Amino acid sequence: MSKFFEKTIHTESIYKGKVINVDVEDVELPDGQVSKRELVRHPGAVGILALTDEGRIVMVEQYRKALGKSIIEIPAGKLEEGEEPKITANRELEEETGYQANQLDYLVSYYTSPGFADEIIYLYQATGLNLLEQRPDMDEDEFVDLIEVTVEEALDLVKMERIHDAKTIQAIYYVMVERLKGE
Amino acid sequence: MSKFFEKTIHTESIYKGKVINVDVEDVELPDGQVSKRELVRHPGAVGILALTDEGRIVMVEQYRKALGKSIIEIPAGKLEEGEEPKITANRELEEETGYQANQLDYLVSYYTSPGFADEIIYLYQATGLNLLEQRPDMDEDEFVDLIEVTVEEALDLVKMERIHDAKTIQAIYYVMVERLKGE
Repeated sequence: MSKFFEKTIHTESIYKGKVINVDVEDVELPDGQVSKRELVRHPGAVGILALTDEGRIVMVEQYRKALGKSIIEIPAGKLEEGEEPKITANRELEEETGYQANQLDYLVSYYTSPGFADEIIYLYQATGLNLLEQRPDMDEDEFVDLIEVTVEEALDLVKMERIHDAKTIQAIYYVMVERLKGE
Repeated sequence: MSKFFEKTIHTESIYKGKVINVDVEDVELPDGQVSKRELVRHPGAVGILALTDEGRIVMVEQYRKALGKSIIEIPAGKLEEGEEPKITANRELEEETGYQANQLDYLVSYYTSPGFADEIIYLYQATGLNLLEQRPDMDEDEFVDLIEVTVEEALDLVKMERIHDAKTIQAIYYVMVERLKGE
């Protein structure tokens, strides 16, 4: 059993939505006390670190209602039910950027907010990019702009908080480590 | 105005909790269509990359109900209302690890899940660590174990998915970049 396991005594479903569900659970703590846990259920997502042959990172600018601003991110998207993350990664890359990848390699996965959410991101690296002649349709509520940046430009965008999310900063650092190792 | 701005037409409050609030908003998209946005409101948090004089990274193991397992993370904690993140960082470091830092440097901030949440993490680096004679009390629903690991051990823990969250993996990569730059 996991260390400091918390036993669920009661689960209340608060909300079932399009992207998230919300539950509140009464749990028994390791010392026998009872506490409440507020839990956001999410289907999981992929992020794609797509590198052009010139070593630029492909990014998309989009408005994020939760933040009230537009930010620049690596392409990403939610898993459909029962979908292999690699399939999602190929689809989201094509939809958001118009690029098809000859090679797609799994890098790492991580939970984004383990304190309250079960959202997991599977990070892939896409290389051997070719622009599709016909770009597939995006989700009808998605509007994005394509940007391709060097690592140095990406770090400037981080300083300016135009790049401002965990998965994109993680992807930039991944590229930096690989380059520094190769020097 | 931000690119692809989405105007809020109506906000419905779904839940007001201890850690999160949940709203559902009707928004007007750039093309005039209307869509729904499910938004989790969070007070924000800090993460602390605490390095011992020997260069080990201080981590805590804790059970995460959202994931149904224990994971190993850098120390972290929520902002109290109106609190400066640096104050939170010092407090959480002391509460979770028993260490006091002579130096605390701001590194970067990022949103954890921009698709549905406004949670922001302010990442600090803590150095010049001294063990407090009297460790302060933790929150009453928190149970953690202290672990100190080298970067190499941390990377093994990532592969084993014992380290499995965005902020901790980001912190490890930060250390790797700094070391590789210094070589």
